[in-house]
Amino acid sequence: MIGCGFMGRAHSNAYRKVGNFFDLEHECVLQAACARNKRNVTAFAAQWGYASVETDWRQLLARDDIDLVDICVPNDLHAVIATAAAKAGKMILCEKPLAMNGSQGRQMVAAVEKARVPNMVWYNYRRLPAVTLAKQLIDEGKLGRIFHYRAKFLQDWTISPELPQGGTGLWRLDVKAAGSGVTGDLLAHCIDTALWLNGRIEKVSAMTETFIKTRKHNLTGKLAKVGIDDACAFLARFGNGSLATFESTRYARGHKALYTFEINGEHASIFWDLHDLHRLQYFDHRDPSNVRGWRNIHVSDSDQPYLKHWWVPGLQIGYEHSFVHQVADFLKGLETGQPAGPTFRDALETQFVCDAVLKSAKTQKWEKVAK
Amino acid sequence: MIGCGFMGRAHSNAYRKVGNFFDLEHECVLQAACARNKRNVTAFAAQWGYASVETDWRQLLARDDIDLVDICVPNDLHAVIATAAAKAGKMILCEKPLAMNGSQGRQMVAAVEKARVPNMVWYNYRRLPAVTLAKQLIDEGKLGRIFHYRAKFLQDWTISPELPQGGTGLWRLDVKAAGSGVTGDLLAHCIDTALWLNGRIEKVSAMTETFIKTRKHNLTGKLAKVGIDDACAFLARFGNGSLATFESTRYARGHKALYTFEINGEHASIFWDLHDLHRLQYFDHRDPSNVRGWRNIHVSDSDQPYLKHWWVPGLQIGYEHSFVHQVADFLKGLETGQPAGPTFRDALETQFVCDAVLKSAKTQKWEKVAK
Amino acid sequence: MIGCGFMGRAHSNAYRKVGNFFDLEHECVLQAACARNKRNVTAFAAQWGYASVETDWRQLLARDDIDLVDICVPNDLHAVIATAAAKAGKMILCEKPLAMNGSQGRQMVAAVEKARVPNMVWYNYRRLPAVTLAKQLIDEGKLGRIFHYRAKFLQDWTISPELPQGGTGLWRLDVKAAGSGVTGDLLAHCIDTALWLNGRIEKVSAMTETFIKTRKHNLTGKLAKVGIDDACAFLARFGNGSLATFESTRYARGHKALYTFEINGEHASIFWDLHDLHRLQYFDHRDPSNVRGWRNIHVSDSDQPYLKHWWVPGLQIGYEHSFVHQVADFLKGLETGQPAGPTFRDALETQFVCDAVLKSAKTQKWEKVAK
Amino acid sequence: MIGCGFMGRAHSNAYRKVGNFFDLEHECVLQAACARNKRNVTAFAAQWGYASVETDWRQLLARDDIDLVDICVPNDLHAVIATAAAKAGKMILCEKPLAMNGSQGRQMVAAVEKARVPNMVWYNYRRLPAVTLAKQLIDEGKLGRIFHYRAKFLQDWTISPELPQGGTGLWRLDVKAAGSGVTGDLLAHCIDTALWLNGRIEKVSAMTETFIKTRKHNLTGKLAKVGIDDACAFLARFGNGSLATFESTRYARGHKALYTFEINGEHASIFWDLHDLHRLQYFDHRDPSNVRGWRNIHVSDSDQPYLKHWWVPGLQIGYEHSFVHQVADFLKGLETGQPAGPTFRDALETQFVCDAVLKSAKTQKWEKVAK
Repeated sequence: MIGCGFMGRAHSNAYRKVGNFFDLEHECVLQAACARNKRNVTAFAAQWGYASVETDWRQLLARDDIDLVDICVPNDLHAVIATAAAKAGKMILCEKPLAMNGSQGRQMVAAVEKARVPNMVWYNYRRLPAVTLAKQLIDEGKLGRIFHYRAKFLQDWTISPELPQGGTGLWRLDVKAAGSGVTGDLLAHCIDTALWLNGRIEKVSAMTETFIKTRKHNLTGKLAKVGIDDACAFLARFGNGSLATFESTRYARGHKALYTFEINGEHASIFWDLHDLHRLQYFDHRDPSNVRGWRNIHVSDSDQPYLKHWWVPGLQIGYEHSFVHQVADFLKGLETGQPAGPTFRDALETQFVCDAVLKSAKTQKWEKVAK
Repeated sequence: MIGCGFMGRAHSNAYRKVGNFFDLEHECVLQAACARNKRNVTAFAAQWGYASVETDWRQLLARDDIDLVDICVPNDLHAVIATAAAKAGKMILCEKPLAMNGSQGRQMVAAVEKARVPNMVWYNYRRLPAVTLAKQLIDEGKLGRIFHYRAKFLQDWTISPELPQGGTGLWRLDVKAAGSGVTGDLLAHCIDTALWLNGRIEKVSAMTETFIKTRKHNLTGKLAKVGIDDACAFLARFGNGSLATFESTRYARGHKALYTFEINGEHASIFWDLHDLHRLQYFDHRDPSNVRGWRNIHVSDSDQPYLKHWWVPGLQIGYEHSFVHQVADFLKGLETGQPAGPTFRDALETQFVCDAVLKSAKTQKWEKVAK
Repeated sequence: MIGCGFMGRAHSNAYRKVGNFFDLEHECVLQAACARNKRNVTAFAAQWGYASVETDWRQLLARDDIDLVDICVPNDLHAVIATAAAKAGKMILCEKPLAMNGSQGRQMVAAVEKARVPNMVWYNYRRLPAVTLAKQLIDEGKLGRIFHYRAKFLQDWTISPELPQGGTGLWRLDVKAAGSGVTGDLLAHCIDTALWLNGRIEKVSAMTETFIKTRKHNLTGKLAKVGIDDACAFLARFGNGSLATFESTRYARGHKALYTFEINGEHASIFWDLHDLHRLQYFDHRDPSNVRGWRNIHVSDSDQPYLKHWWVPGLQIGYEHSFVHQVADFLKGLETGQPAGPTFRDALETQFVCDAVLKSAKTQKWEKVAK
Repeated sequence: MIGCGFMGRAHSNAYRKVGNFFDLEHECVLQAACARNKRNVTAFAAQWGYASVETDWRQLLARDDIDLVDICVPNDLHAVIATAAAKAGKMILCEKPLAMNGSQGRQMVAAVEKARVPNMVWYNYRRLPAVTLAKQLIDEGKLGRIFHYRAKFLQDWTISPELPQGGTGLWRLDVKAAGSGVTGDLLAHCIDTALWLNGRIEKVSAMTETFIKTRKHNLTGKLAKVGIDDACAFLARFGNGSLATFESTRYARGHKALYTFEINGEHASIFWDLHDLHRLQYFDHRDPSNVRGWRNIHVSDSDQPYLKHWWVPGLQIGYEHSFVHQVADFLKGLETGQPAGPTFRDALETQFVCDAVLKSAKTQKWEKVAK
């Protein structure tokens, strides 16, 4: 484990729980936690039961008793660590977004594929049961031809101009560490899900905005220009002919982490909302006309994805379980030889869309998505 | 039209509109409005287009140009007016509840049946499209064996102890005018719907409460004991073996007129809510297990009850339309000879349940409902 | 009244009801209904109580006993009739959109302003109580600086390729009669509300799509190219610095007439949905932090817009009431000399936005909105 | 840990997680799992990391290396085990309901109080953040005088007559093992919460029903009379003068585990629903009248109960977390010497209400609740 912040906790919890709830050949052994600050990483290791600590990730990669590294550090460090880890022959789980941009991502893909190491990116929302159920319904052809896709990810935590940028907990506001603002942080999630559910995005027209132009920088203590996008919206056309709108912001008062998507097909539609992540809304036009309505599905039954591993119908699971499922699927992939997605290669496509979005916001034109 | 209060307006609106939206043999002609206060009734008649006014309902009944009387006065006057109207051979539409109690109601039923005059009671909620759709689904057997019925009617407008009782607009708080509090006013609606949808109620166990013990009486200006029930809840057993809970109050902060009912059957369940009267919630266990959910039906399509007479799908109608539907059905009943319910006889059953409820609240025992 | 289709009914109902519920100096007298088909217009006049019929709108305009004309015909006839009516000195209420395009609209504005005739366009949604309440909250400054606006209007009634285009009831699919598809029909509503609530739109980037390329034309009986936009989405920047997404389609399975808008401000946010038009969602960040939440406001109280004219708290009104309110406000405007909006001039701005949207969809570029 | 069924898993998960998320002096060490079936308990211990296994709970109690026992076995065994454990000086966490009835419960309370061993009963729903928040709001006086309490717990998993009774996973249908049906299983939860939030219940009037009269018994293989209550509803009066309705059933089609409660106070009201356990509905009448509405609170912020220990705002936790919180509070209680509730003594009150309910259902009279 490299990094001991929010994601470090979420992943550690997943490693510790997965064996209690899933029958798997492989067991997770928490060998080492790694972070620059010795005191922090020692406390983290103690709390989560890591057997040892490191303060330099190169040291960690040099160890023989480490089979897999989990990269939970700011975006600007993903590429260098992942490339080195691949060379060292470690399996790699990398936080999203894969990279700072597509060209960096391309190099990372090349590295893991050359080294033939199992790899995955933590686009965890795919593995919330309701989202996986949506995927199943689409794959079964329940929706028919797709006309529309719309996604948004709305937050409201950076509205105050007093909030500084940079440093622990706030590197997401620092463009040097994060690469971009909501595009790489939030829209990347929306794009990953969309590509998975609805296929390739061909082209986009985007706009971005930075509402608060300067913020104190935590590393320098001085007021500095804000380089990230506070908000981003884009139009898109998918390869299957459907139209899409995407939007993300951290200035939507009243929404903490409202990631929603909706898909409208010829026969049926689907809606999902992260604020009620255990529900899926489903409308089927083939229902008798006088009793047609959006079905509010409480996704907590044993015949719904992942749920036989948990409690009983009606009793919901939460956010953290998506990580447990991702670990379970990754380990199952090792067993079966069928790697679980999204691999680095899958995640590179999301990176290409992000690149096109940010480019379009600058050029004020429609931009094609690289392949 | 006898009475020119809230219900007088609601019914007048219905008489004026019904011909614009429904094709009917009979036309409503607003011949006369009647109320004690000359100035009020004159203004009312002017506003609604009544051709004449009366200040004594006996005068009205004596007129030859009146075919039908609509009784929209406080409950204590229903019996005397309805009985006289029946003797005068007038058709009668009477506000709910039918009477102050069952024995009074029995006399009224005898009067209209002896006189063979068409009659109906204004339990208007039956004719909201979503409620009528519920009735259709039940009659089609969609629910199977019924296990549970639960209804409540919650308001919050009498919480202030400063609110007086008695007189215009507040006679519902005066036990002499109203007969009872929430039982006759609100639960009567719940009971009428329940009998219509789920059949006879056999017995009940009830409790009532008067939270504010004394209020100023508007007619005397003096503080007087409050004689009505502010709240009433009861358990019930239906003839079909299902169990029920009913509750009503005017002390439920946050609810203006929250009338809801839910029916749980072997195969399907239904839920409805007056605050979103254009929706019906429907759960069908025969849906495939992974996509089962409560269907939120937006009842606004032309193949749903009454709606072909109104606008287009998605555009909702409101409260007042229930009265238009009731007039339309009454007039259609005159055409076909199949009287539309609830007739006085139907409404008498509701009266019997109210009687049993109020009695049980006093005796603290289960009480059987009279037949 | 020129035209006796869906909107002819909605407006006639409004004229008939307004006097029952609003105290106004002016009274609506239904002098004449006008439509090409004699049989249809005669039946329409009989049903709604029009005193006479005309089959040529020029005849109608020539009559001295007509003070006001209501234009409820397909969009391609608005300009010619309105211009003639202005010359004839009639007051004009015109269905939306004002015109086929901005230049036509400009001429119409010139005509009514030259003739100094009172005029208004039927963007009725402004006058649903919940929407008017939103306007009040914004005008009171409750939201603070506005960051985001998002609106969509989703329907699903044209998904079947069997549906023909053109002729009675289907002229909205015929580009010659309608001018455009969802842009002029549905987005025009969204734009009107947006301009009213959030001010001028500066520029847009749009995409449109026609999913079904050919449909039988009802007037020729032959398969013909579909010229309208089935779907349209656009990004926009408002003059106040806020960002927006707009979307409309008739291919969103499960939505009959789902017009929603949301506004995110610094301090508070608002959400509204036509499918539950009597509710307004309101989030106020100034609420104590542990009990902050979206407030689901049941807009049915007498201190909320228009509602003192109707029933009692908890009892909702519906779609048709927006037209009654518009007539009431128009008549009140005649009394006070303060014309009620949207006037032709107000509606012209919406037309300019529609023009820019349709142009952008063609040019694939951001387009500025004309002034 | 005695018992390795559903609750055994839920509690084991709590013991394993609590140290990762809460800073506590005490650490949970999973010393031994105990169940009759050697193979089952061995597998259970392996999966959850228990250091040893026992097949006789008396053996377990005899061990010196056990400080605390957790009783997760059918209700008929609670008393004998708990009494013995108290004598052995072990701390005791006992599944709910405390006992088969009040007199048995009284003995258990006597045993733990005599032995002075820390003790608690697993009424876990108290510790869902939204429910705890409700408690805080009530304790702060936000609601004012309480008028109404209503709770229900609806399930639908026993509707099929093919479902047998008795044995592993189905002992809840066997009256000998369970003591009662929904009353002890589901209503007990509702009652515990109600007593905690709203104080003592004075008297009740109840009805119960067994819809399916006979079911195959898994232990004998023969059809046997069903002795449990399939459904139970009761009216109640609280010591504070408020009225209540309670209902529970396993025959409410469409509801998996719909536990809801609502409290109506003079100034504010609260509603909660287990199916969306991370939300609390709150209505405050002191809000300005035109923007009053039920606030839908997404309980996921760090200043809401327990949540600073978990993720970030907007990211919900689930059912299982209630157990983690209960362990955390129990351990904190050991540190501070302020025992966390509900203790055996607290849970005895719930038992007395259950007794009165079951008695009233038999006598068909109002019954007082023992003290």
